[in-house]
Amino acid sequence: MKRIDNRSFDELRDIKITRNYLKHPQGSVLMEMGDTKIICTAMVEDRVPPFLKGTGSGWVTGEYSMLPGSTKNRKIRDAARGRVEGRSQEIQRLIGRSLRGVVDLSQIGERTIWIDCDVIQADGGTRTASITGGFVALVDALNWLYEQGEIKYIPISNFLSAISVGIVDDMVMLDLCYEEDYKASVDMNIIMTDQDELVEIQGTGEKNSFSKEQLYKLLDLAEKGNRVLIAKQKESLGKIGDLIGKSPNTEGEEDEQ
Amino acid sequence: MKRIDNRSFDELRDIKITRNYLKHPQGSVLMEMGDTKIICTAMVEDRVPPFLKGTGSGWVTGEYSMLPGSTKNRKIRDAARGRVEGRSQEIQRLIGRSLRGVVDLSQIGERTIWIDCDVIQADGGTRTASITGGFVALVDALNWLYEQGEIKYIPISNFLSAISVGIVDDMVMLDLCYEEDYKASVDMNIIMTDQDELVEIQGTGEKNSFSKEQLYKLLDLAEKGNRVLIAKQKESLGKIGDLIGKSPNTEGEEDEQ
Amino acid sequence: MKRIDNRSFDELRDIKITRNYLKHPQGSVLMEMGDTKIICTAMVEDRVPPFLKGTGSGWVTGEYSMLPGSTKNRKIRDAARGRVEGRSQEIQRLIGRSLRGVVDLSQIGERTIWIDCDVIQADGGTRTASITGGFVALVDALNWLYEQGEIKYIPISNFLSAISVGIVDDMVMLDLCYEEDYKASVDMNIIMTDQDELVEIQGTGEKNSFSKEQLYKLLDLAEKGNRVLIAKQKESLGKIGDLIGKSPNTEGEEDEQ
Amino acid sequence: MKRIDNRSFDELRDIKITRNYLKHPQGSVLMEMGDTKIICTAMVEDRVPPFLKGTGSGWVTGEYSMLPGSTKNRKIRDAARGRVEGRSQEIQRLIGRSLRGVVDLSQIGERTIWIDCDVIQADGGTRTASITGGFVALVDALNWLYEQGEIKYIPISNFLSAISVGIVDDMVMLDLCYEEDYKASVDMNIIMTDQDELVEIQGTGEKNSFSKEQLYKLLDLAEKGNRVLIAKQKESLGKIGDLIGKSPNTEGEEDEQ
Amino acid sequence: MKRIDNRSFDELRDIKITRNYLKHPQGSVLMEMGDTKIICTAMVEDRVPPFLKGTGSGWVTGEYSMLPGSTKNRKIRDAARGRVEGRSQEIQRLIGRSLRGVVDLSQIGERTIWIDCDVIQADGGTRTASITGGFVALVDALNWLYEQGEIKYIPISNFLSAISVGIVDDMVMLDLCYEEDYKASVDMNIIMTDQDELVEIQGTGEKNSFSKEQLYKLLDLAEKGNRVLIAKQKESLGKIGDLIGKSPNTEGEEDEQ
Amino acid sequence: MKRIDNRSFDELRDIKITRNYLKHPQGSVLMEMGDTKIICTAMVEDRVPPFLKGTGSGWVTGEYSMLPGSTKNRKIRDAARGRVEGRSQEIQRLIGRSLRGVVDLSQIGERTIWIDCDVIQADGGTRTASITGGFVALVDALNWLYEQGEIKYIPISNFLSAISVGIVDDMVMLDLCYEEDYKASVDMNIIMTDQDELVEIQGTGEKNSFSKEQLYKLLDLAEKGNRVLIAKQKESLGKIGDLIGKSPNTEGEEDEQ
Repeated sequence: MKRIDNRSFDELRDIKITRNYLKHPQGSVLMEMGDTKIICTAMVEDRVPPFLKGTGSGWVTGEYSMLPGSTKNRKIRDAARGRVEGRSQEIQRLIGRSLRGVVDLSQIGERTIWIDCDVIQADGGTRTASITGGFVALVDALNWLYEQGEIKYIPISNFLSAISVGIVDDMVMLDLCYEEDYKASVDMNIIMTDQDELVEIQGTGEKNSFSKEQLYKLLDLAEKGNRVLIAKQKESLGKIGDLIGKSPNTEGEEDEQ
Repeated sequence: MKRIDNRSFDELRDIKITRNYLKHPQGSVLMEMGDTKIICTAMVEDRVPPFLKGTGSGWVTGEYSMLPGSTKNRKIRDAARGRVEGRSQEIQRLIGRSLRGVVDLSQIGERTIWIDCDVIQADGGTRTASITGGFVALVDALNWLYEQGEIKYIPISNFLSAISVGIVDDMVMLDLCYEEDYKASVDMNIIMTDQDELVEIQGTGEKNSFSKEQLYKLLDLAEKGNRVLIAKQKESLGKIGDLIGKSPNTEGEEDEQ
Repeated sequence: MKRIDNRSFDELRDIKITRNYLKHPQGSVLMEMGDTKIICTAMVEDRVPPFLKGTGSGWVTGEYSMLPGSTKNRKIRDAARGRVEGRSQEIQRLIGRSLRGVVDLSQIGERTIWIDCDVIQADGGTRTASITGGFVALVDALNWLYEQGEIKYIPISNFLSAISVGIVDDMVMLDLCYEEDYKASVDMNIIMTDQDELVEIQGTGEKNSFSKEQLYKLLDLAEKGNRVLIAKQKESLGKIGDLIGKSPNTEGEEDEQ
Repeated sequence: MKRIDNRSFDELRDIKITRNYLKHPQGSVLMEMGDTKIICTAMVEDRVPPFLKGTGSGWVTGEYSMLPGSTKNRKIRDAARGRVEGRSQEIQRLIGRSLRGVVDLSQIGERTIWIDCDVIQADGGTRTASITGGFVALVDALNWLYEQGEIKYIPISNFLSAISVGIVDDMVMLDLCYEEDYKASVDMNIIMTDQDELVEIQGTGEKNSFSKEQLYKLLDLAEKGNRVLIAKQKESLGKIGDLIGKSPNTEGEEDEQ
Repeated sequence: MKRIDNRSFDELRDIKITRNYLKHPQGSVLMEMGDTKIICTAMVEDRVPPFLKGTGSGWVTGEYSMLPGSTKNRKIRDAARGRVEGRSQEIQRLIGRSLRGVVDLSQIGERTIWIDCDVIQADGGTRTASITGGFVALVDALNWLYEQGEIKYIPISNFLSAISVGIVDDMVMLDLCYEEDYKASVDMNIIMTDQDELVEIQGTGEKNSFSKEQLYKLLDLAEKGNRVLIAKQKESLGKIGDLIGKSPNTEGEEDEQ
Repeated sequence: MKRIDNRSFDELRDIKITRNYLKHPQGSVLMEMGDTKIICTAMVEDRVPPFLKGTGSGWVTGEYSMLPGSTKNRKIRDAARGRVEGRSQEIQRLIGRSLRGVVDLSQIGERTIWIDCDVIQADGGTRTASITGGFVALVDALNWLYEQGEIKYIPISNFLSAISVGIVDDMVMLDLCYEEDYKASVDMNIIMTDQDELVEIQGTGEKNSFSKEQLYKLLDLAEKGNRVLIAKQKESLGKIGDLIGKSPNTEGEEDEQ
C-alpha cells in the first residue's frame, strides 16, 4: 500500500541541506524535507543567561517560529498576539534541550549560541527538521569559533538528528507529511545520535492509545530514518564533520559533564 | 541498593486521593504522592472555544500552576511576570491532551470542562500526579453532569494515570522524588490506560542519551506504576468508577470519533 | 434575628489556624474562617527591591491570588489574562502595607519576606483572613531567622489581625460570609493591633451611604472580632507569640522608625 | 502652630473648579486644589460592559492617570510599562465606585459614562480632588443627556465630594499637601454626601497605628472640609445643581435600587 | 568617485524578483536587491476588520519582521519582547498605507489581503524592497481572486515601487546599502507610481538638515530608480501586469473613491 | 475661496506658547494652535539608555499621548490596551529624532532629557505642534542645566519648528485643522530650522498620489509657516533664545558631531 505521495512506509522525503545560506550568521542552513523548508541559523553572542554568569560555561538555546505565509491559512504572528504560543514554546524548549545534550557547554566559554529555526514553508515535521538542520548550523558556528581560535576543538560528542514517525490508518509510517500527520492516530518525534542512542522521545496517541509493541515498531522506523539523516548531515558537513566526537586528548568525556 | 527515601527501585511513594476536597467545583481532588500535593479541580462551563461553536461537541482543557510556597526557593507567579512560563504551558497542554484522549467529547454537549492543577507542595512528579488526580476530578465532574441528567452516561473510555520513571546513577527507578529527578540522567513521563496502552510518552536524556533497551525497562516499570495508580483511582471512585468504559449501547465507540 | 448560618450579629465563624502547613516555606499557615480557606506562606529572600539596596533595611510584601476552583464560577487565572486584576492588586497592597506597619524593617537586614496568600476556597472575608493568617506565617518566618541567629529578636511591635464588618438588611454584622457580603449595603474591613489600635480601615457604602453613628457601631464590632482573632493567633503561636513586642533593650522603639 | 503653607489645621487650600474646560467631552472640569491640578472629563458612550447588556441599565466608570510632568521626578507612563500600576488601579476603582454610589444607573439607559481624571500637576490629594471634580463633570454629562431628551431627569441622589485628612507631627490636619502627606503617620481619604453621610472611608496608619478617638477627630475634620467642597460644587454648577436629588415624582427612591 | 560596491551614485543594486516562491500563499515573492532578501507574501482572508464590516469594502494591510539571523548582530524577536518594536510598526503601517493607495478596496469584497514582509537577509533598504516586492505579491493574489471569478478585474490603478535615496559624504546616492545608510546624513524613502507620481515621501536629516535644492536632487534620483524597479515588476509579472490600471469600463475611476 | 474657519490657504491658526506652565518640570509649555492644545514638558534625568553608558554623551527622547477627553470620541488609553499604539509610537519617534537633530548630545553629559507631549485637546496638527512646543520646553530645560552650571552653553544649533500642509479639494493649504485633515488627499508634515533647512519631511497621498510640482508648492507653504512659528518661539523665549546657535568658541561645530 502506497502513501499519499507514493513513498513506501519507511521512506523519507527528499532531503536537502544547504549550508551558508545567509551571510551574517556564523552558521546558517536551509533545511528542506520534501515541501518543509526551514531557515536554521546559529549565532554566537558573547553573553550568557544570568544563572551561568561567572561559571565559565556557555549555553545553547533555540527559538522557533513559523512565517505567516508558511501555512495554508495565514499563521498569525506571535508578536501580534504579544506572546509566544504554547506550541512554539514547547518546540523551542525541545530544540535547545536536545542540542545541549550533545554539546560540552563547559568548553565554549561564556557564550550563548542561539539556534533560530524559522519555518518558511510547512508540510509536517517542522520541529524535527529544525533540530536536524539546527544541528548542522550549530556545528558551523562552533567551527567558526574553532577557526577563530576561541575554542580548542569542536566540543560535540555525537551527531544528532530527529525524525517523526506515526500510525496512520493503522500503518506505521516514517517522516509524516502534513496530510498524514493530520490523520495520524499516533504521532511521535524521536531524536537520536549517530550511536543509535535516544536523546528525546515524545509520542502522543492523538486519537487512540497505542501498545508497547507499536511503540517498538515506531522506534525501529525512526532509527532507520535518523541513520539516513545523519548520513546526509555528514555528507553536507564534509571534513568539518570528521572533527565531531573528537576531543583533543580523551574521548567521551563530554558524557561526564 | 536503596533509594534516598528507602524505597526499592520499583516502589511508588505513598498515594492519597482525597475526593470532594473543595465545595465549589463539580470535581475536586487533593492528590498526594509522597510530599507532592496538588489540588486538582474539574469545573463545568457552558461554553466552548470558538472553533467548537455550533458543533455540538465539548472540550476538556487543563491549566497548571505552582503556588509560590510550593518550592524550596519561592516560585515567582506567572501573573507577576505577565505570562505563563514555557514549562507550565507545556504541562497544561499535556494535561488537556491526555485527558481528552479518553473522553468522548461529542457526548458532553457544548461545554468546557476545566481541569485546574495547582501544586501546593512540590517534590517531583507534579505533572504526572496532576494527570492522575485530574482524571479523578474529571470523572466526578462528568458524574455530576450525569446525575443532573445533562448527559446519558459517563463518556470515558478508560481509566488513565501517569507516572515518572528515570535513570539515576545508572539505575532505573519508578516515581522520582525531586532529589532523584534533579540527579537523573534520563527522565521520562508515561501516561497509560487501564488496558496497559500508552497515551503519551515523553522521555529526555537530560545528561546522557539512552538505548532502546533502557527505554524498554523504563516502560515496564511505568506500566507497573500505572497499574497501582489506577487501582487507587478505582478504590477512590468506588461505584462511580464502575461506570467508566461503559457506553449505554455499544462498546469502544469512543475510538471512532 | 438570626443570620443565614444561625450566628448572632456579633459572632465570628469557626476559626482554625494550622501552622507549618507546608514543608518548604519558613512560615506557612492554613487559615480557615468558616468555609474560607487560605494558604498563607512567608518566605525569606536575601534580596531587597532596588529602592532599599544599600540601606541595611528589609522589606515585607504581599501577594494574593484565588485558585480557579475557589469560587462558584471558575475564577480565570491572572496569568491567563496576562496581568493581575485590579482587585487582587488592591488586596496585595493592603496585605503588604498593614503587615509592614507592625514590623521594624530596619531590624531584618536586607531581606524580603514574601507573604503569599492563596485562596483555595472562598466564602467571604478572604482579604482579612489573609492578613490574620499572613501575620502568623510572618511571625514564624521571623522566628526562623531568629533561630538561625540572623536577627537578634523578633522585630514585631504588636499582634495584628483583620476582620470584615458590614450592614446587611439594616443590621450591623461581624465577619460576613459571601452571601451576606453580596447583600451588604455597607462593607468594611478593619485591621487592628492587640492594643485596640487601628492600622487600616476601609469602608464602602456599596448601595447606601452611612452615618458616622453607624461607623462607630461597626468599629466596636470589629474591635470585638479582632480581639478574638488575636487570642486565636496567640494560642496558635504559643511561646513564640510571647516574644512579640519585646525588643531586647527598650519597648515601643518601633514607633520611631 | 501653623502648617507649611501657613494654613490652620482645619483649612482647605484654594479651590477652583473650571467647568467646560475642553470642547469635546460632554462634561469637563479643571479641578484645582492649591497646586494640585486635574483635568476631569465625563464622556458618554452608547455601550455598556458585557455584564450589563440587555439589562437596560448603564454604568459609570473611572480612569486615573498622572502625566509624566506632574511630579517632581518624572512619572513613567503606564503605557510604557505595559500595565496600569497598582496605585492607579486602586484609585480608578475608587473613583468609579464612589460616583456610582450616587447615580441611579437604571435611569441612564445602556450607556457608559467614562470619568477620566488626568493629573497635570500633583501636590497631594489627587485622588480626592479627582472625585470632587469628577462629580461636577459627571453632572454636566448627565445634564447634557437630559438636555438632549435622552433621560427624564438628572438621576443623582446627592452631591458627593472627597477630602484627605491625616495626622502629621501628632496634629490632625485637613487637606494634606504633598509634603504633609509624605510625613503623615496617618493618612485618610473620606468621601461624603451633602447629607453628611459617608460613602467611602479609607485610612491607613502609614507609620503608626491610631486610636478610635483620633479617627473620630479626623472624621469631624473631613466633614467640615467636604461641606466646603460641596458648597463650591454648588456654586460652580449653579442652576444645574438645583436639579440634583430631585427625581420627577418621588424622592429618595434612588436609595432603594 | 565610486561607492563602496563600485556602483555609480545613480545605480541600483542587482534586482531579482522571484514569483511563486512558496506554495501556500496566493501571492509570494522572494525580493532581492543586492544582499537584501525579503520574502513577501500576499494572503487572502475572507474577513475584514470591525470598522469595515457590512460596508462591502475590503482591506489591505502589511506586516513586517526581520528574522533573527538577518542582521550582523542577532535581531531579538518581537515575540520574545512581547510587543512589536516601534520601527517595525512604523514600517508595517507604511507598507499597508502605500499599497492601499493604488487598490480600489471597494472592488475586492469584504476580504483582507495580508502583505507579510519577512526579511531573511538585511543590507539596507528593507522597507522599500518590502513595498516593491509586496506590490508584486499583491498583484498575484488579486489575480488569483480574478481567476477564481471572485472579482471582475484587478482593481489596481497603478504600478507602485519604492526606493531609498540619501546623502552620504555630501554626495546624493540611489539605493543605499547598509554601510552607506549607516553613514548617511540624510536618508529618504520615496514611493512612486508608474505615472511618476508620489505616493509617500519620508526624509530625515539624521545628522544634518538639508536644503530644498538637495531634496529636489534626491527626488530626481528616486524617480529614476523607481522607473527601473517598475520595469522589473512589469517584466516579472508579464501578461498579468498588462491588466493593471484597466477597469472594465472606465479609466482612472479609482481616483474618485 | 475661504476655508472652514475663514482662514486663507496660507494662514496659520492662532498660536499661543505659554512657558512655565507647570511647576515640577525643568521646561514646560502649553502649546496652542487654534483648538489644538498640548502640554509639552522637558525633564532632566541623570541617566542614559544602556547604549550610551560610559560614552559621556546624553540623549533626548520623546513621548506622546492623547488624553481620553482630547478627541470627539473618547480615546482609549494605551495603558488600558497594554501597549502604545502604532501611531503614537511613530509620533514619539519623530519628536525624539527631530529634536536630537538640533542638539549636540555630546555637550549635555550623561543625561536624558524627556520631552513629553500630552494632547489635552486635539484639532489636527498635534504631532507638529508637539515638536514646536517641545522645542521650547527643551530650550528651557537646557537653560536650567546651564543656569545650574551643569553645562557651559545651550548646545542647540538652530531653532526648530514643524507644521502640517496638505491638499484639500485640490487646494494646497497650511496648518490643517481636523476637519481639513480628514478630507485631505495629501497630508504632509514638515520640520524646519530657522535657516530654512529641512530636518524631516513626511508626506502621504492618503487618497491620491501627487506630483513633484505639488510637493514644491507644499514645501513653500510649509517654509512660510515655519518662519512664523520660529518667530513666535523667539518671542516667547526672549533673551534665552538669543543663546541658541552660539557655542562658546566656534560656530556650527554641532554639524560635525
